Amino acid sequence: MLTEKIKKKLKNIVGSKGFIDTPEDLSAYSYDAFVKEATPQLVLLPESTADVAAIMAIADQEGIPVTARGAGTNISGASIPVNKGIVLSLTRMDQILEVSTPNRYCIVQPGVVNGDLQACLAKEGFFYPPDPGSYMVSTIGGNVAQNAGGPRCLKYGVTVDYVLSMEVVLASGEVIRFGSRNVKDVTGYRLSSLFCGSEGTLGIVTEITLRVVPLPEATRTILAVYNDLDDTADTVADIIGSGILPAALELMDKTVVNAVEDSAHIGLPRHAEGLLLIEVDGVEEAVEKEMRTIVEKAKAHGAQEVIEARTAAERDDVWTARRSAYGVFARLAPDCIVEDATVPVSHVPDMIRHIRQIADRYQLRIGILAHAGDGNMHPLISTDTNDKEEWQRVEAASREIFELAMSYHGTLSGEHGIGLAKTDYLPMAIDDATQAFMTRIKQCVDPKGILNPGKFV
Amino acid sequence: MLTEKIKKKLKNIVGSKGFIDTPEDLSAYSYDAFVKEATPQLVLLPESTADVAAIMAIADQEGIPVTARGAGTNISGASIPVNKGIVLSLTRMDQILEVSTPNRYCIVQPGVVNGDLQACLAKEGFFYPPDPGSYMVSTIGGNVAQNAGGPRCLKYGVTVDYVLSMEVVLASGEVIRFGSRNVKDVTGYRLSSLFCGSEGTLGIVTEITLRVVPLPEATRTILAVYNDLDDTADTVADIIGSGILPAALELMDKTVVNAVEDSAHIGLPRHAEGLLLIEVDGVEEAVEKEMRTIVEKAKAHGAQEVIEARTAAERDDVWTARRSAYGVFARLAPDCIVEDATVPVSHVPDMIRHIRQIADRYQLRIGILAHAGDGNMHPLISTDTNDKEEWQRVEAASREIFELAMSYHGTLSGEHGIGLAKTDYLPMAIDDATQAFMTRIKQCVDPKGILNPGKFV
Repeated sequence: MLTEKIKKKLKNIVGSKGFIDTPEDLSAYSYDAFVKEATPQLVLLPESTADVAAIMAIADQEGIPVTARGAGTNISGASIPVNKGIVLSLTRMDQILEVSTPNRYCIVQPGVVNGDLQACLAKEGFFYPPDPGSYMVSTIGGNVAQNAGGPRCLKYGVTVDYVLSMEVVLASGEVIRFGSRNVKDVTGYRLSSLFCGSEGTLGIVTEITLRVVPLPEATRTILAVYNDLDDTADTVADIIGSGILPAALELMDKTVVNAVEDSAHIGLPRHAEGLLLIEVDGVEEAVEKEMRTIVEKAKAHGAQEVIEARTAAERDDVWTARRSAYGVFARLAPDCIVEDATVPVSHVPDMIRHIRQIADRYQLRIGILAHAGDGNMHPLISTDTNDKEEWQRVEAASREIFELAMSYHGTLSGEHGIGLAKTDYLPMAIDDATQAFMTRIKQCVDPKGILNPGKFV
Repeated sequence: MLTEKIKKKLKNIVGSKGFIDTPEDLSAYSYDAFVKEATPQLVLLPESTADVAAIMAIADQEGIPVTARGAGTNISGASIPVNKGIVLSLTRMDQILEVSTPNRYCIVQPGVVNGDLQACLAKEGFFYPPDPGSYMVSTIGGNVAQNAGGPRCLKYGVTVDYVLSMEVVLASGEVIRFGSRNVKDVTGYRLSSLFCGSEGTLGIVTEITLRVVPLPEATRTILAVYNDLDDTADTVADIIGSGILPAALELMDKTVVNAVEDSAHIGLPRHAEGLLLIEVDGVEEAVEKEMRTIVEKAKAHGAQEVIEARTAAERDDVWTARRSAYGVFARLAPDCIVEDATVPVSHVPDMIRHIRQIADRYQLRIGILAHAGDGNMHPLISTDTNDKEEWQRVEAASREIFELAMSYHGTLSGEHGIGLAKTDYLPMAIDDATQAFMTRIKQCVDPKGILNPGKFV
């Protein structure tokens, strides 16, 4: 129980600067980028692993729910404290502890912002590939908790592929460490992968060792413009199926292009029914050759025009526009749901055709956005959650999109996580025995169920 | 208890062809490529997931140990049934169930031989990167259980990086399935990573979906010959530190080169104190450029000669020689221990210097072999386990090598696993709280402790 006495104990751990209990300040921690909210009773901002361990020991003793939080940018509701209790904000643990480019790793605290890490690595000619849309504000701890993706993950892999080692505070307050600074490591169970993507339900990550990679020598970025969305999607399946692996292969339909252009004013082709943003990186000569093949394929599938971003500034413009899509769309209506169903890439054309039919049938404004190269669809649904009738249509449409994805051996979520958004849909993807197994692991690791309760396990 | 009645029940499941209980046949399942052995009471060769589930249900009921086994090529003793009971050989479950190169995955049963999968994929212009030394005989199930590596893993990553989805039979006989055919998938806990590398202690893997990648357009392979082993090692650290990522970067010292040449007769330079086998692959133009830089670096570090494998046959020769090193060395004495300590690559030169000093000090014949590019050392120690005095020196030398690796933030095992070989050394790498956590997971998943008992948890 979160009594005054316990609160005092907790305040002694984090000090006044790390202790938030006034209603107006607490409300800032009641939501993330999903459409629901719940206000915690207390927010604590620890500064060290020892702080986190001391907090967890008390929370465990008292049976107080603890929901870890980074920047709160996730769009699945994973960081909403539905059972109240404590929100543990890791944002003050924001130190980059070590960068070793000769050995291709870095060690960071969970509160380090992804973009800050990128800036630090770029100075040494390296980068950390996972780049969720939120990367300028989201934290590595949050990225790890959600196993974040991003456009670049098509070629480079997602967060879990970069986590070499972790320090984790368990529900009990015990601290464990596993993995090492080595890419090859089979010493004991691979626990980092279990915690990565567990949405704060298994432990509090307090230190992470990440693999980093050299910045590519050359990068080329193009926009391929289509009069037909099916042609756009067919190009994607053809490029990937032929064995080329671009650094990014993003798709936008006309609705998204126009919403973005309204805001970005960079001259995106408003008439385009479909637009591909394609980036290739690597050794200069290889980049030239791959891009030639890609352009040929785009044209063979009916691209009307191929526009190249010729300077770093033009490239930034294009990416800023793409990255703004969710934010821009979110401002079109009171709320915006971005779905995250993912399918093997050969089914992308079918998925897009069906999503458009679903939009028509349910009379919803759905913009189609996708990390298309890895089949990671991001249909954007404009809505108003206060409009109960419309919300029912949104939910029905979402369910159909998930059913469709499952029928193509896809998955409910490629990179956003389950959170609150998809718990109800889980039985589509995970059978009873497997769900029971996940719950068994959860109960084993967090027997009192205090870590981010009310979520998918 | 494995009574006659229970045996009969088990025989009913697998039939006569899948049932082995005569002493001479059982002895074939008593060892792997490590130096210890233990004979099981029974060997079962199931043909389906249903068979495995039925066997496990009985084993669980009766508390009978079950040790899963592929080709038995592992060199850490992971498949030795130290507590007797049943050896479950998955070799009859050897079907490649699906290959989808447009979607870059394949689905296999655990008994599929790695080399057979490679041959099947090559026909479609694809490959499966993890290539342990044993790949021509070892099974995918065994590779998954051990989270196998190999030379190519320097660039492409290890087994766990390719496992998309699994079907697993639990100790209880329940069947669970997780993951999907999608590279991006954050639907629930990432259980595949937990089972991959768990050495058969958590479940029996009965189906695996693997990511596959297109064969590179071009490959170039060279041997760089040195008069000085330190120069050889310095080249490795320089190449990796500079941001180049070869497909393979293997190191051999004079002892290994000569042992291999005695057997392979392909004209390896016997006078070389150090030899690097370096392979680069990718788009042709990129390969040329990277190889130019590598050759420059090799020469700058004192390479006397750079020999290129100019034809596919020459390339095969070089690789066959490299892959034979362990087998050849193993024939020099009654036994051969291959260690597997791994360090961040900048410490490879120091590791090699110290391993040579250790060999001198303990008067042991140690050949130095390494997947040097990822710091994965494979010192080969010739010995005779019946010579108790020498064996003590081998153990003391091994311990020093591990201590050394740990002092460089390395790990006990990069790719061979813990098995029986390294259980005693685990406390060097894993602290008490973390070991207790692993044991807790093990007890949760396999409460009666019937899966591969007597190992690291």
